[in-house]
Amino acid sequence: MGRKIVVLVILICTLLALGLGVAAHAQDPGGVTTGAAKDVIGATPGAPTADDLKAAGKTEPFAAKLADVVGQNKVAINLSWVLIAGFLVMFMQAGFALVETGFTRAKNAAHTMLMNLGIYGIGVLGFFVCGFAFMYGAAGAIGNLGGTPTLAGGHELALTILGHKFGLLGCSGFFLTGKYYDVMVCALFLFQMVFMDTAATIPTGAMAERWRIISFVIYGFFMSMFLYPIFGNWAWGGGWLSQLGANCGLGNGYVDFAGSGVVHTVGGLCALAGAMVLGARIGKFNSDGSANPIPGHHIPMAILGTLILAFGWFGFNPGSTLGASGAGNLRIAVVAVNTMLASAAGLVAAMIYMTIKVGKPDPSMVANGMLAGLVAITAPCAFVSPGESLMIGLIAGILVCIGVALVDKIHVDDPVGAVAVHGINGIWGVIAVGLFADGTYGCGLNGVAHNVVGLFHGGGLAQLGAQLIGVITLGFWAFGVSYLFFKGMNKIVPMRVSKVEELAGIDMSETGITAYPEFEMRR
Amino acid sequence: MGRKIVVLVILICTLLALGLGVAAHAQDPGGVTTGAAKDVIGATPGAPTADDLKAAGKTEPFAAKLADVVGQNKVAINLSWVLIAGFLVMFMQAGFALVETGFTRAKNAAHTMLMNLGIYGIGVLGFFVCGFAFMYGAAGAIGNLGGTPTLAGGHELALTILGHKFGLLGCSGFFLTGKYYDVMVCALFLFQMVFMDTAATIPTGAMAERWRIISFVIYGFFMSMFLYPIFGNWAWGGGWLSQLGANCGLGNGYVDFAGSGVVHTVGGLCALAGAMVLGARIGKFNSDGSANPIPGHHIPMAILGTLILAFGWFGFNPGSTLGASGAGNLRIAVVAVNTMLASAAGLVAAMIYMTIKVGKPDPSMVANGMLAGLVAITAPCAFVSPGESLMIGLIAGILVCIGVALVDKIHVDDPVGAVAVHGINGIWGVIAVGLFADGTYGCGLNGVAHNVVGLFHGGGLAQLGAQLIGVITLGFWAFGVSYLFFKGMNKIVPMRVSKVEELAGIDMSETGITAYPEFEMRR
Amino acid sequence: MGRKIVVLVILICTLLALGLGVAAHAQDPGGVTTGAAKDVIGATPGAPTADDLKAAGKTEPFAAKLADVVGQNKVAINLSWVLIAGFLVMFMQAGFALVETGFTRAKNAAHTMLMNLGIYGIGVLGFFVCGFAFMYGAAGAIGNLGGTPTLAGGHELALTILGHKFGLLGCSGFFLTGKYYDVMVCALFLFQMVFMDTAATIPTGAMAERWRIISFVIYGFFMSMFLYPIFGNWAWGGGWLSQLGANCGLGNGYVDFAGSGVVHTVGGLCALAGAMVLGARIGKFNSDGSANPIPGHHIPMAILGTLILAFGWFGFNPGSTLGASGAGNLRIAVVAVNTMLASAAGLVAAMIYMTIKVGKPDPSMVANGMLAGLVAITAPCAFVSPGESLMIGLIAGILVCIGVALVDKIHVDDPVGAVAVHGINGIWGVIAVGLFADGTYGCGLNGVAHNVVGLFHGGGLAQLGAQLIGVITLGFWAFGVSYLFFKGMNKIVPMRVSKVEELAGIDMSETGITAYPEFEMRR
Repeated sequence: MGRKIVVLVILICTLLALGLGVAAHAQDPGGVTTGAAKDVIGATPGAPTADDLKAAGKTEPFAAKLADVVGQNKVAINLSWVLIAGFLVMFMQAGFALVETGFTRAKNAAHTMLMNLGIYGIGVLGFFVCGFAFMYGAAGAIGNLGGTPTLAGGHELALTILGHKFGLLGCSGFFLTGKYYDVMVCALFLFQMVFMDTAATIPTGAMAERWRIISFVIYGFFMSMFLYPIFGNWAWGGGWLSQLGANCGLGNGYVDFAGSGVVHTVGGLCALAGAMVLGARIGKFNSDGSANPIPGHHIPMAILGTLILAFGWFGFNPGSTLGASGAGNLRIAVVAVNTMLASAAGLVAAMIYMTIKVGKPDPSMVANGMLAGLVAITAPCAFVSPGESLMIGLIAGILVCIGVALVDKIHVDDPVGAVAVHGINGIWGVIAVGLFADGTYGCGLNGVAHNVVGLFHGGGLAQLGAQLIGVITLGFWAFGVSYLFFKGMNKIVPMRVSKVEELAGIDMSETGITAYPEFEMRR
Repeated sequence: MGRKIVVLVILICTLLALGLGVAAHAQDPGGVTTGAAKDVIGATPGAPTADDLKAAGKTEPFAAKLADVVGQNKVAINLSWVLIAGFLVMFMQAGFALVETGFTRAKNAAHTMLMNLGIYGIGVLGFFVCGFAFMYGAAGAIGNLGGTPTLAGGHELALTILGHKFGLLGCSGFFLTGKYYDVMVCALFLFQMVFMDTAATIPTGAMAERWRIISFVIYGFFMSMFLYPIFGNWAWGGGWLSQLGANCGLGNGYVDFAGSGVVHTVGGLCALAGAMVLGARIGKFNSDGSANPIPGHHIPMAILGTLILAFGWFGFNPGSTLGASGAGNLRIAVVAVNTMLASAAGLVAAMIYMTIKVGKPDPSMVANGMLAGLVAITAPCAFVSPGESLMIGLIAGILVCIGVALVDKIHVDDPVGAVAVHGINGIWGVIAVGLFADGTYGCGLNGVAHNVVGLFHGGGLAQLGAQLIGVITLGFWAFGVSYLFFKGMNKIVPMRVSKVEELAGIDMSETGITAYPEFEMRR
Repeated sequence: MGRKIVVLVILICTLLALGLGVAAHAQDPGGVTTGAAKDVIGATPGAPTADDLKAAGKTEPFAAKLADVVGQNKVAINLSWVLIAGFLVMFMQAGFALVETGFTRAKNAAHTMLMNLGIYGIGVLGFFVCGFAFMYGAAGAIGNLGGTPTLAGGHELALTILGHKFGLLGCSGFFLTGKYYDVMVCALFLFQMVFMDTAATIPTGAMAERWRIISFVIYGFFMSMFLYPIFGNWAWGGGWLSQLGANCGLGNGYVDFAGSGVVHTVGGLCALAGAMVLGARIGKFNSDGSANPIPGHHIPMAILGTLILAFGWFGFNPGSTLGASGAGNLRIAVVAVNTMLASAAGLVAAMIYMTIKVGKPDPSMVANGMLAGLVAITAPCAFVSPGESLMIGLIAGILVCIGVALVDKIHVDDPVGAVAVHGINGIWGVIAVGLFADGTYGCGLNGVAHNVVGLFHGGGLAQLGAQLIGVITLGFWAFGVSYLFFKGMNKIVPMRVSKVEELAGIDMSETGITAYPEFEMRR
């Protein structure tokens, strides 16, 4: 059996190697020509213009050549910044694994861990096949990363209404073959892939302890190939939400710097839909409708996960400039400080709230408060001041405590609080942009030639309007489409393990091993 | 209740948004003008001078414009270096959480974890409110990070003696508002904040398993707002210790590259004071004065924490150049290697020492040996050669073993060895600068125009003198003031949990949950 | 006793300080002159030439000076890239510790952790003393890191055959003293040290649960001082394997980008030899030759370790360009994406294979599948396209499942699957270069003026031939010499703990403590 599989795989691979592998029309796979003199143009207010560069070829030939190295240095700074930030975000997968496993029960720990590990592999494949192409296939080059525009190959789906183009879907970059075998495209792919992965891993928390692996795998491809990339295209890939400013005068269009909406609300609302379809764990709700707490089995594990997430978030938010040098990219320092302040404020707010509410600062809610602050600041982190980040985080820390209780109240069983942390606070973050954006950053964003300004800084309702349209769209897309997907899948591939399996713990029945075979457990 | 809190918070936030949030006189919050032609001046021995730059505007106009991009590239390299290093240091919080929890008992694990999580949130707020302003409010711009000097707004407390200024306290940058809403200031804030956080989390180890949360929270603000920032100002913010060279001829003044003293000794001596006031855990000391070992409950957790700390330390030490390009900043490579060598030497020394002493290489002491090496090299890492780093680490690894025994002997109960690791080896690191500094680095430091030279390299007693003054000051400030603080607080807010609570484990009584509800524990 | 040791150490250190510490003929320890105008030459296709630079001194004096800063910026980008990547690789030590401990039994957890912590300290010392000098002492300067060539001091052992030089061993850079006290040399040392450490920590997995500490310590020096550095010299330090192209026309010589062979096969085959000499754990094999599974005691720990390894691998592979700016270094983006894709493919392949084979996706094999993909892509990551990386990873994920069964079949007891993951897939990675290298990268590598091309892209058998010679050499060196070493050592210092100790768990007998003193364990 094993031998047959190997032979088969080798055969497939050899064939593929002769097809997929041949890098026809590769753009700059060797990284040689990316980053050059043209990248210095407009990098700073005093930087050379295109005309300056042209003239210099004759008047200052050495400096003109030197500009080539300066340009590549700039691109190298930006590309390495994006990669390092992407690595940090990838590490968040470990944070999610620990938080979700720590906050659930020992008898399902191997299963929860497996989902968090598996989603990374599945997600990479799905995003490689078509997710990236759908999301960014119409986005064109990212200036910070240098190179020639490749992705905007004119291949996209869009509606044109009254002369304005509203993008729906990108259609280039599948499998990163041909001219997409390029250093700039690869840097963008890696960074965006780990964002998708973050969204994809959120539902594994809300649906933990009762989800069949086979159904989870199908979900993984659904999320990485369709659900996430399509909303991602609308918000970040040049799609219709991003063009609400240029096309309809709504501020800078839907603005979501690092993805409170694109990543966290998509994940959080999909988690809500999944948890609703899947139903509550046995024993979670009493016949009178009241909820029983089911404590997490390993608090240090969950707190470690929380700190890993907070660490990785410094890649998530500051990395989302896609650069560190040129054109306002030093803003990364403000972004990082805002991220730090909001996480701290969320943590402290939850600590105070829980102490007032139940008399003690429950560490699991303190951790969730920190995560809530992080989720909420993710959209506005580049557009607000440190003081405002603190406020956004404070509110997030309280919202999450209320949210967890609320989810219980509507009889949805979310073992780790994913809906409250990512869904509710994702929405809060998206709205916060429309309220707090202070007009110091974002000029040129989504093709609008002014900084992002929210209600509290004299921006009126325009930006807030774009944000609210985003929230409504998220409701329909991330919750609605997910709900239909889960309902449909459940009919074909039943999502839930059997009652006997669930009571015994699904580690053995779903994964074949147990998480802690040597530790004695309480009954 | 919950609803009232939310309304209140929203009200406060709206008001604050109209006050705090309005970025009046912001310096360069958008990161547009920071990093420019002037930043190339003096970057290397052959770099253009200010006059060169001025002349070039006419003779080589293109190159002059190009210099703007080169300057921003340099600042971008440095700013991103500082941020990445700061992220690594932030991650050390996870390392501390694991080491402290792993080396204490299971019944208090949620509480120990909560303190390590909570201190980050509390610390960020305290440092944001006034800690940063007290520490750096008189420091001026950091050249590596570009931008216009903002912090040195002439707002500081200082004594002038015989025509020499001795700074006591900075007074600008509170809340990062107004002109402190600036990319360079933010980068500096983030990096310094995580250093403060490191100092602040050290006492939670020495005081674990018996400290009330409410008292811990008050301590958190004391540390982040006062104790750490004020010594920090003296050593790093241009204060009197740093000026001992320029003002009194003592070498380059008190030199403490990445904070063996500023961070670790402050944390370690504060921990000592706290542990003394708090008293030993029940069962630690017998009536005849002998000590009972209380083994940590989770060795893999503690070792993982140790490795996370060693990883984060590569941000701690090499990040402390505050730059990677220009003016000797490539020294970061030597700093990193020195850090690695000292950690290895500390580890091996403790391994050998314990094998000789007790016959077996106790993993908890091996881990502490590694940490001791890291603490000790933190001050001298930039001023010594690799071979000398090895020696400093070797001594540290032995000192920590002796130190742990010593702390037991004076009947102070320090569950994790924080006093020996951070207090004793912090002092050793500070002194090591005065002994081993080899005169290859540090020119211009603290306003003194020569490299740092210690006793063994012909520097005489000048540098050693400055270091010893630093150590004495640390004794008075970090131990003395902390002791008075804890004594005073203890009268108003009793620090210690009740005997009944302590015996039962304080997870439930202090945090409301237990760390491992499903695992069967030994009696 | 303790006091005597301290006095002794202080004495030794003082003496050493006067010897080792004195930085005679230091190259550029202060990082001042490294990175200058000459580093812009040839950085990009349009960059200035040496003649341009010379002429510019007269015609464009400002630009010529500016070039100094541009050159240092470039070097700073590259040096900081190498350091950050090195830090990530160092963190892999935590990943190995967790994977190995999680996949073994609780009664030996402190011992397994101690080996993983200890090998870092031992390895640093061994590599510092002579490992680095043997490996890179003949390699010369690395252009990306700037500075003056120092290491190629003409000190090497080499054979000259028919006019071609075949290097055997470097002989400069011991203790990083003298002119090797240099920022560029230090950056190189740090990066290479963590690679050695990775190789050195692999056998601790295969030999876990029965290896005496004293014997392990001796092994640690053998690996870091001899076994690894010498093969490393042949492959990466300019030695004979690397010159098979220039000297014998075999493609670009032995090509192993980030060390599938140099690091992983060396570690994996040494692990095989060690496990063979050490013998199987009691209870692993039945008298009829069949194997009993011995499940790991902590699956979440092992999965966390796996994710940490996957995170650190983003330093391992993309860092191996030793730069981010200049001369094709932007290729790092492709390298990173290839690494991600292969890890995902390995994960998914193992998941599918195990589901087909045993009906369930055993998380420990899924984790090993991911690691196998990473090991296999390590050599070819820079030379293949994303699609081909996926194939290489797919095959690796299946190979590891077959490999684990195979190792059982030959009655070698490898508790964590180290031989299958690192040994077998390391070899697969080395061979994959010869098959899949697509001719888009590697021009100039090992002194050969064309890109690396494998069999499937028209390169014929030349490159594959060099790779196979590498594999055969690995067999002789990494397995053969290790086997002799272990056999010899076993006679002088018996490697194995006693039967009584092994049955009781070797934590207490070897380390003096137990890993989980408070948890109740199953019998």
